[in-house]
Amino acid sequence: MWGGRFTGGPAEIMEKINASIGFDKALYKQDIQGSLAHSDMLAAQGVIAAEDRDAIHRGLKEIQEEIEAGKFDFKTELEDIHMNVEARLREKIGDPGARLHTGRSRNDQVITDVRLWLRDALDGIDDLMRDLQRALLDKAEQYADTLMPGYTHLQSAQPVTFGHHLMAYVEMVARDRGRLADCRKRLNECPLGAAALAGTSFPIDRHMTAKSLGFDGPTRNSMDSVGSRDFILEFLAAGSIHAVHLSRLAEEIVMWMSDRFGFVTLSDAFTTGSSIMPQKKNPDAAELVRAKPGRLLGAFISVSTMMKGLPMTFCKDMQEDKEPLFDAVESLTLAVAATAGMVDDMTARPDRMMDGLKQGFPTATDLADWLVRVLGLPFRDAHHVTGALVAKAESKGVDLADLSIGEMQAVEKRITDDIYSVLTPAASVASRMSFGGTAPARVREAVAAARKDYL
Amino acid sequence: MWGGRFTGGPAEIMEKINASIGFDKALYKQDIQGSLAHSDMLAAQGVIAAEDRDAIHRGLKEIQEEIEAGKFDFKTELEDIHMNVEARLREKIGDPGARLHTGRSRNDQVITDVRLWLRDALDGIDDLMRDLQRALLDKAEQYADTLMPGYTHLQSAQPVTFGHHLMAYVEMVARDRGRLADCRKRLNECPLGAAALAGTSFPIDRHMTAKSLGFDGPTRNSMDSVGSRDFILEFLAAGSIHAVHLSRLAEEIVMWMSDRFGFVTLSDAFTTGSSIMPQKKNPDAAELVRAKPGRLLGAFISVSTMMKGLPMTFCKDMQEDKEPLFDAVESLTLAVAATAGMVDDMTARPDRMMDGLKQGFPTATDLADWLVRVLGLPFRDAHHVTGALVAKAESKGVDLADLSIGEMQAVEKRITDDIYSVLTPAASVASRMSFGGTAPARVREAVAAARKDYL
Amino acid sequence: MWGGRFTGGPAEIMEKINASIGFDKALYKQDIQGSLAHSDMLAAQGVIAAEDRDAIHRGLKEIQEEIEAGKFDFKTELEDIHMNVEARLREKIGDPGARLHTGRSRNDQVITDVRLWLRDALDGIDDLMRDLQRALLDKAEQYADTLMPGYTHLQSAQPVTFGHHLMAYVEMVARDRGRLADCRKRLNECPLGAAALAGTSFPIDRHMTAKSLGFDGPTRNSMDSVGSRDFILEFLAAGSIHAVHLSRLAEEIVMWMSDRFGFVTLSDAFTTGSSIMPQKKNPDAAELVRAKPGRLLGAFISVSTMMKGLPMTFCKDMQEDKEPLFDAVESLTLAVAATAGMVDDMTARPDRMMDGLKQGFPTATDLADWLVRVLGLPFRDAHHVTGALVAKAESKGVDLADLSIGEMQAVEKRITDDIYSVLTPAASVASRMSFGGTAPARVREAVAAARKDYL
Amino acid sequence: MWGGRFTGGPAEIMEKINASIGFDKALYKQDIQGSLAHSDMLAAQGVIAAEDRDAIHRGLKEIQEEIEAGKFDFKTELEDIHMNVEARLREKIGDPGARLHTGRSRNDQVITDVRLWLRDALDGIDDLMRDLQRALLDKAEQYADTLMPGYTHLQSAQPVTFGHHLMAYVEMVARDRGRLADCRKRLNECPLGAAALAGTSFPIDRHMTAKSLGFDGPTRNSMDSVGSRDFILEFLAAGSIHAVHLSRLAEEIVMWMSDRFGFVTLSDAFTTGSSIMPQKKNPDAAELVRAKPGRLLGAFISVSTMMKGLPMTFCKDMQEDKEPLFDAVESLTLAVAATAGMVDDMTARPDRMMDGLKQGFPTATDLADWLVRVLGLPFRDAHHVTGALVAKAESKGVDLADLSIGEMQAVEKRITDDIYSVLTPAASVASRMSFGGTAPARVREAVAAARKDYL
Repeated sequence: MWGGRFTGGPAEIMEKINASIGFDKALYKQDIQGSLAHSDMLAAQGVIAAEDRDAIHRGLKEIQEEIEAGKFDFKTELEDIHMNVEARLREKIGDPGARLHTGRSRNDQVITDVRLWLRDALDGIDDLMRDLQRALLDKAEQYADTLMPGYTHLQSAQPVTFGHHLMAYVEMVARDRGRLADCRKRLNECPLGAAALAGTSFPIDRHMTAKSLGFDGPTRNSMDSVGSRDFILEFLAAGSIHAVHLSRLAEEIVMWMSDRFGFVTLSDAFTTGSSIMPQKKNPDAAELVRAKPGRLLGAFISVSTMMKGLPMTFCKDMQEDKEPLFDAVESLTLAVAATAGMVDDMTARPDRMMDGLKQGFPTATDLADWLVRVLGLPFRDAHHVTGALVAKAESKGVDLADLSIGEMQAVEKRITDDIYSVLTPAASVASRMSFGGTAPARVREAVAAARKDYL
Repeated sequence: MWGGRFTGGPAEIMEKINASIGFDKALYKQDIQGSLAHSDMLAAQGVIAAEDRDAIHRGLKEIQEEIEAGKFDFKTELEDIHMNVEARLREKIGDPGARLHTGRSRNDQVITDVRLWLRDALDGIDDLMRDLQRALLDKAEQYADTLMPGYTHLQSAQPVTFGHHLMAYVEMVARDRGRLADCRKRLNECPLGAAALAGTSFPIDRHMTAKSLGFDGPTRNSMDSVGSRDFILEFLAAGSIHAVHLSRLAEEIVMWMSDRFGFVTLSDAFTTGSSIMPQKKNPDAAELVRAKPGRLLGAFISVSTMMKGLPMTFCKDMQEDKEPLFDAVESLTLAVAATAGMVDDMTARPDRMMDGLKQGFPTATDLADWLVRVLGLPFRDAHHVTGALVAKAESKGVDLADLSIGEMQAVEKRITDDIYSVLTPAASVASRMSFGGTAPARVREAVAAARKDYL
Repeated sequence: MWGGRFTGGPAEIMEKINASIGFDKALYKQDIQGSLAHSDMLAAQGVIAAEDRDAIHRGLKEIQEEIEAGKFDFKTELEDIHMNVEARLREKIGDPGARLHTGRSRNDQVITDVRLWLRDALDGIDDLMRDLQRALLDKAEQYADTLMPGYTHLQSAQPVTFGHHLMAYVEMVARDRGRLADCRKRLNECPLGAAALAGTSFPIDRHMTAKSLGFDGPTRNSMDSVGSRDFILEFLAAGSIHAVHLSRLAEEIVMWMSDRFGFVTLSDAFTTGSSIMPQKKNPDAAELVRAKPGRLLGAFISVSTMMKGLPMTFCKDMQEDKEPLFDAVESLTLAVAATAGMVDDMTARPDRMMDGLKQGFPTATDLADWLVRVLGLPFRDAHHVTGALVAKAESKGVDLADLSIGEMQAVEKRITDDIYSVLTPAASVASRMSFGGTAPARVREAVAAARKDYL
Repeated sequence: MWGGRFTGGPAEIMEKINASIGFDKALYKQDIQGSLAHSDMLAAQGVIAAEDRDAIHRGLKEIQEEIEAGKFDFKTELEDIHMNVEARLREKIGDPGARLHTGRSRNDQVITDVRLWLRDALDGIDDLMRDLQRALLDKAEQYADTLMPGYTHLQSAQPVTFGHHLMAYVEMVARDRGRLADCRKRLNECPLGAAALAGTSFPIDRHMTAKSLGFDGPTRNSMDSVGSRDFILEFLAAGSIHAVHLSRLAEEIVMWMSDRFGFVTLSDAFTTGSSIMPQKKNPDAAELVRAKPGRLLGAFISVSTMMKGLPMTFCKDMQEDKEPLFDAVESLTLAVAATAGMVDDMTARPDRMMDGLKQGFPTATDLADWLVRVLGLPFRDAHHVTGALVAKAESKGVDLADLSIGEMQAVEKRITDDIYSVLTPAASVASRMSFGGTAPARVREAVAAARKDYL
């Protein structure tokens, strides 16, 4: 396989650790696509004959059919997808097959394949992320007025609407999509023709190959082309960040599904039972989504650690980029799709959310703001007065709105009956009309803007 | 400090784990900058009086001077930079100081501060990265013709020029700068006015504050504003990727400085000695740069792990974003500056590079390409013939060019004397004229294009 | 500083990236301790004179006092703690100070310092972890009978006692302490005398130095001694695992403190308020503990990434081991102490826990087990019958115990009144007498055993 | 499948993300082994009849044969290996199969399976690690006298022997084995019978099951038993540390194989060629080993991130422990085996090592030590004198031993001819007789001690 210089064969453990065909066969379609473009270009440039190109095309198409029909015999001793395809091509068409590998190397070939593969994967993931945004927007619109406790530190903070809460995720996903779009744009340069590392002496036309494969143009430096993997790292990082966002929504779904909260229900479609506890409806999908950042972060660490401190140019270490990448793409795809599914499936329980608003004095800030606005207290003083009223209500076991005006005035004598108008969750929410605030009118505007900008 | 509701004080360990003033005082300038803008807006909207605004401005400027003169007494019991500044402001100006915290919260305040701080840091880092590109370009131009062995797997592969090799890093840094620029763009939205989490009932103008702080506009969702940290993750990820790239150049410098390679020298400015071995000139700066991906990756993992699975909105966990971020910015800044310094300082040793070209048969591919081009052999067959010639040269302990024409013809009888014309490193390099290839002419074009596009 | 070979000084950025004195001064005590032992040994072996040793001891003790009094002038140009101390020693005592660095190098010196430092830190952490176990055991005993819902998937699963729940953490901490104890044992070998990397030609006695510094013996290989850092990695890994365990208890405390659960309260000592929301009592300490795995994992990744692929022996990269280590020790110390404090401070609310037992059918498994035990149904069939009864109860909005015997018999006609005896949480818990089960009697046995084995 | 409570089926994406049978079928043997032990115990305790036990045993053995013969039909809708085996058992033997799941749950079952599986894996890895030590010891003995440059900072530091260098790795592997042995010991407790989370009301004997499965005893707390995964984290951490050590030897092999060093050769058994460069013999196995820390660290991060902040007890997130664990075991197994293979295969080239000793003044420390020992100079002064001599030799382009006595005396007039006796690498090495030093006699002692203690 290595020509005239090798006499001994590989050790058994060498073959095991070295062969990548077990996983890089996933790239078969891109590998063939690249070879079709490369041979077109070689023919156009006169490096190979038109008949050779035709034979190559015919052979490669047959090979693709064999693979897709499950009839291709992948051989470990041929190491990888490139050698497997090429060896089969030579079996099929002879000499022209042996001319295909002119002006290129496996080093530029593999990284072209991976770019093509990831580009497709990114497009698929972006579609799913848009679906997720659409699902969130639909629910946000539906629940634009639905009151629920807003939390900081998981302590009741201020009333919000469920729609507003869901819109927070629409924004996160929008930035996540932006990151993946930036990654796609940056990776969309064609390394083919960088050859082993130095370029080639054959009169190839890299712009032609780049164009025919849908790239924006060829990469600029041959050594960088075969020796860099930052587009993979960028994807893994952006994917990790998205997975972290999904894990937060998943955490909330798990909590909301717990009977102590009971804020939402999921149907049987997204819950499972227990082998021993017959009453269980477990939010397994949400929990699995919550776990996924681990997979993405792990992949990012794997590939970063591998690349750290590697000298130019291609080192075999880089073969270890693929399994983490493939796993990350699959994990992220599942996580986004499952999240979109759960959001679609989810039903809010406004009664339980309203229960939540009865504890924790969520309108205390409204009371303080009233003191500032109506009585002109400096905010810090208003904060102090309100704290005293909260302490009084808590000690009596009642809500703020249940304190009598006399009790209120005992703390701050200028308080009037008007104060009760700000102590309901609905009034609180309606008042938060600042840009980006939770007032239902603002939420509806936000939904409309997001539909326009993101879908 | 917490108004009327708290009766007991914090436990000692609580104060220790909770206070952030030890590190968030680094944000004092941004905190004051934000308060200046916020009070301007409050006055413009009629929420506070013009005199209050003036008092606030005067007080804040004095506080900034106190801090910068080292005369400010930071208090742990006041927890963080926001409370320290505000408490001092009230000491100085009384009631107007207590009005400043209207229509905002520490939750939106801190994240505004961090965005402003990181935006500045990113601008500083981008300047250093441009310096690094300039240093690389200067050396690349200087060494555009300097021959050296190009490696794959750290095995001699094909001749390249040192200039071409350095240009690979120019490309990597260009993409790294792109990632950081994308991050800067995405973070440049203003969360101020999101208040605790739900927006505010005061008639604030978030567009005005955003504009006066140099943001592109306000963030769109109040809960997202205070509850998200993805811009920090994006920076840490992009910084990690850049650090990985720097570590690769650092690894090469360490190797090139080792006497077995001896490809470059660094002056005393970038080497250190040993406490015990008097002959040592160690490339410490390069080694420290090589280590830095650890710091950046560690920071990314820290903040990602912290954010994973957090429910909306602000949770105190998020306070743990700062120390990793600050450490990452400092680590990256040092690493880029030290790398630029080393590249400037570095002198190539073409004699040692040429020594390197005498081993490992780096023109074997040129021989194979000749067989394809001149004799019309399919590349795979040419590869095999060349392998046999390499084996012959190796067994005789000579270079390929030292084989006689007879020895060559014994393997492939059609070989002619013309073959010797492709077996020198200079001829090899000159022939690699494909776009992005190592031919000196191509390198010079690449330098010119990069100067235009990147500097 | 580097003797006769260096002519130029370091670049400014070189000094900045290179100097470690900013952080390694934390090792001053260990550095002096090591030098005291080393000079004792040199004198005992006749390598230096007794008077030299005495002068060295006197000088080092004065230096330690200077440092502890804040009067020592640490100099960046002297790079690190070793050179700072040694330079000051020579200022003080002249020639004998210059003899101290015989038969050793900074390479073995620094790693001896770090081992001594970490050994002390581990002892301190172990004390805190024992305190945490004690706090957990006290609460577990107090709440050995207190019923609460046991969760899987955060869904009500089966009743447990709060004491049993807390005992789970006692076991986790026990294993965590075991890991740190193993780490301490493994690191307790003395590298001093390995010198730069090859050992020394001076007739030193490494067993004597090892013994006087409290090590179990000298390390076996000089190159490994100066070139390895796995004891740091082992600590960071074990510390990370402990931090993950603490984060789980912290998550539970955050949830239990949320009014939707309300299972426990923390006093003002472990909660904080809000700058804007006067009603807040936030469980900040718990949230910060929940965040700490990030810091520890980040440190582990930092040092692992740094060490990956480094050739023998000492490389300057290894200087980057210290800041992550120091940060990790401090983070872990705070987290353990804060957790112990919270557990001590925490008060259970049995009424709210009992509320939790009224939802989610937590005794459904008891019903199924009764069907197996009394009626002889195969467990799978009993599971199915119970599921049908749960569905019936749910549709009626009642608990299982509220179904009439007729309703029960409509599903499985052999059910008798006896079944009601297993449907209370107290009966359920009492029945789980298997070893390690939640029956209060078992919990009390477990507490007693843990007190004996772990405290 | 979930009994009477579920009416709808799972969504398609739910089934995809939820099912674990695709990977947890790897546990089939352990799952069956656990069920055999569990049914034995149930029968011994009178919970099931002896005939039921016999039927169960017969059925399970048939199922194991079906699986091993590739005739078992794994069903995704049955989620996991436990349900697949149990469902098939009921098909085969009916009711008795439905009795097997008494007094246990999938929660304790799966974690028992994983402990058994990992225990076996650890034993296999330990065997390979011992093989690696043996291979290193054989080479260390063979090359106990072979001189090579010892490096710090990849700069020539002092002469060592190749045997001594290899012995450094023997020590690292010894500690690595210790860590994995500690992990094995700590994991060897049996969670079976913890049931879902609370223990069981059936009169099971957990000590009996534990013993029959080879565990040291049952776990102590049922909630901890089903809710913890620290033994997996401990393995991944210890495995990562070992992988880091292997990556360092791999880095050295890659460098030594590079023609600039040429210190060792590997045969065709551990090298591969290039598709384009016919002269190549690439050390692919070493590079792949160098990359493996990424895989292990990634797995550690995956599982740590997943576990962070999870409330008690079992959450579905934990299903994500398996793929990283399986991948880590396979990666580590390959890496250790490939490293042992390379060490066995590796041949030193003493001539090239000696070339390396001719540069970089590796005996400069010996010169300094001579000044201390013979002339009584304080070490710091000796260091300075030597630095001046190095500068002189360097400027003349000669080695230290090539300076005339007159040139030496011009720097320090008391130097005598005796100094030349310490300036050869052989003399240097022989003099380093301190414990753990590189003197060949010491290396031989170290080899003997290691054979006794480690093999």
